[in-house]
Amino acid sequence: MMRDVAIIGIGITKFGELWDKSFRNLIAEAGSKALFDSGISGSELDALYVGSMSTGRFVGQEHVGALVADWSGFAHMHIPAMRVESACASGGLAVRQGYFSVASGMNDIVVVGGVEKMTDVVGDEATDTLATGLDQEWEAFFGATFPGLYAMIATRHMHDYGTTREQLAKVAVKNHANGALNPYAQFKRAIPLEKILCSPMTAYPLGMLDCSPVSDGAAAVVLCAADKAKDYTDKPVKIIGTGQASDTLSLHGRDNICTFESTVYAGKNAYEQAKLTPEDIDVAEVHDCFTIAEILAIEDLGFVKKGEGGKAIDKKITTLDGKIPINPSGGLKAKGHPVGATGVAQIAEIVMQLRGEAGERQVKDAKIGLTHNVGAVGASCVVHILEAI
Amino acid sequence: MMRDVAIIGIGITKFGELWDKSFRNLIAEAGSKALFDSGISGSELDALYVGSMSTGRFVGQEHVGALVADWSGFAHMHIPAMRVESACASGGLAVRQGYFSVASGMNDIVVVGGVEKMTDVVGDEATDTLATGLDQEWEAFFGATFPGLYAMIATRHMHDYGTTREQLAKVAVKNHANGALNPYAQFKRAIPLEKILCSPMTAYPLGMLDCSPVSDGAAAVVLCAADKAKDYTDKPVKIIGTGQASDTLSLHGRDNICTFESTVYAGKNAYEQAKLTPEDIDVAEVHDCFTIAEILAIEDLGFVKKGEGGKAIDKKITTLDGKIPINPSGGLKAKGHPVGATGVAQIAEIVMQLRGEAGERQVKDAKIGLTHNVGAVGASCVVHILEAI
Repeated sequence: MMRDVAIIGIGITKFGELWDKSFRNLIAEAGSKALFDSGISGSELDALYVGSMSTGRFVGQEHVGALVADWSGFAHMHIPAMRVESACASGGLAVRQGYFSVASGMNDIVVVGGVEKMTDVVGDEATDTLATGLDQEWEAFFGATFPGLYAMIATRHMHDYGTTREQLAKVAVKNHANGALNPYAQFKRAIPLEKILCSPMTAYPLGMLDCSPVSDGAAAVVLCAADKAKDYTDKPVKIIGTGQASDTLSLHGRDNICTFESTVYAGKNAYEQAKLTPEDIDVAEVHDCFTIAEILAIEDLGFVKKGEGGKAIDKKITTLDGKIPINPSGGLKAKGHPVGATGVAQIAEIVMQLRGEAGERQVKDAKIGLTHNVGAVGASCVVHILEAI
Repeated sequence: MMRDVAIIGIGITKFGELWDKSFRNLIAEAGSKALFDSGISGSELDALYVGSMSTGRFVGQEHVGALVADWSGFAHMHIPAMRVESACASGGLAVRQGYFSVASGMNDIVVVGGVEKMTDVVGDEATDTLATGLDQEWEAFFGATFPGLYAMIATRHMHDYGTTREQLAKVAVKNHANGALNPYAQFKRAIPLEKILCSPMTAYPLGMLDCSPVSDGAAAVVLCAADKAKDYTDKPVKIIGTGQASDTLSLHGRDNICTFESTVYAGKNAYEQAKLTPEDIDVAEVHDCFTIAEILAIEDLGFVKKGEGGKAIDKKITTLDGKIPINPSGGLKAKGHPVGATGVAQIAEIVMQLRGEAGERQVKDAKIGLTHNVGAVGASCVVHILEAI
């Protein structure tokens, strides 16, 4: 009943502390880059989707769909515009909504954006606002924070599987090495293992350099019915699988905190739709909001067995020239993590990889890629699988 | 390509200042009532959609899709759960997303909720938070509020069409008379014209009793493929038309502030899909966040000619026994306006009307109904047309 959907254009802003760019300017920049890249004109667009996590708190602005439609010059087309929110998975979920709207035949061409402007707030407000993605009554109210909860997962993973502090740190070393090659990255520099290991402790065993930063940025993609994609681009990239799943909002509600079942189920659904297995994936962007999160991700997505994520880092199978390169963009760790933008930026990176346009960070012979976007501490997850056609 | 979709269950909480009920309890109550009404079990659900406007500011909680899935007992099913935001049109937009997910064949049965808990904040915070639905940089920053902007529309409408202060007040009189018959209404009482006219001035010509209140509440509906609806209920109600449109976020960007083009376009799309005209509608719930908004709505939806909304009130064509009964529930004015819940509650009211279960406020022989849900000052709008089958 569903038809195939392709990505025909991408756009991304530089990520970072962008004090000279406003929320609306960021998303308009990413959107216009994506439209330009696709070669379509705005009048061909049927709808607009935006992923954002907490714009009411970060920039005092809700009604973000209408804002983006207006600020991008589409208001007078009266284009249907919608915001999707699922904490840090907002961007990936927005892509999924855009995908379904085209797959169903409702729309032919849509643009999907993701954006967050996190550095305009002061003091602890960014941390407090991120904690609105946790369970407010049972976690945030009692002082739990993102680093604190991921630190609990990390210590349990170390206990159960012998994962080491050094293995965690090596995730950051790899991602900073990749980020150093990415012109859009917030931290465009390699950082040696010793520096990661001696960074100020945030929540044991996670040091400051195990944590993704507070960032501003935006990304956008243009989706089109696959049978029309070649009218616009020589290098369309097809979305061949999508999966989404939820889990308890609070970490203490889970049977096992060393696995995100939302990732397992979202991945399973995406693999089934694509008729592929983890072995078929050539490159992946996964949700490394903390170093431990990347280890969980590569296990839960089936790239390595449960418990072997730490060893996989030692064996360098996830580096740019490894068996399964993970986070060539630098990941959330080095590229930056403007929460609502992240899921869309992951898609943009994989499109660049599959087109062979990723420059110095290009993964060789990448034909099939995967994106993995997590909301908060695994209460929601969206996975996409893309293929060059 | 799309299949028909029916509503097989509805649930609604009482609206009001509900200090003994939390955000999550409200939506769980509405959702479980809707599931009970539909006769399905939770395990039959394929996905969950929630409309909410500003949960980050009102209750310190984002990631609302995952929260609702969890708090409703669906987390261990790993159900895909999503929040949709479009200011005060969030609820209607969530219904539209649920509709498309079933129409496309992606899902068979979904639940769509809408919820807002607005009375937990203090001082001006509710007004400030509502103003995040306006253009933050060009309206809210300069002190513009919802009542202020709608007051400008009202004065212009008075100037252009001779609409009077009394006609505005009579909208409130009618809606309070209807609300007095609605057990779910926040203000379950009739208010005479004189009291409306002498209520404290909020922004000329709108007095306090021309404005919808700050409210807590939730509503939910269960959607199902129409060909399976009769397995669950004897009285399914089909969604035969849906439309959505946007406009400039700021009021000053419009050519004419006496019409909401988002309503005109959303209505046009819904009528076209339903193959109906305004004359075919038996009952409508429209977005009367202020009395002037109902006058605009009945004009822009084509129930009366542009400029004749005020006179229509005088002629009583919109009362319960009038030619086109508007807001039998009491509308946002008397039923209350928990912003994210409103669009879903409108659908629930029309379903009750089409099933003939609306009790004292039942519109006679209602077969086809319409809902009209506006985001902020018309920057977005969602219209649905429903039919008893």
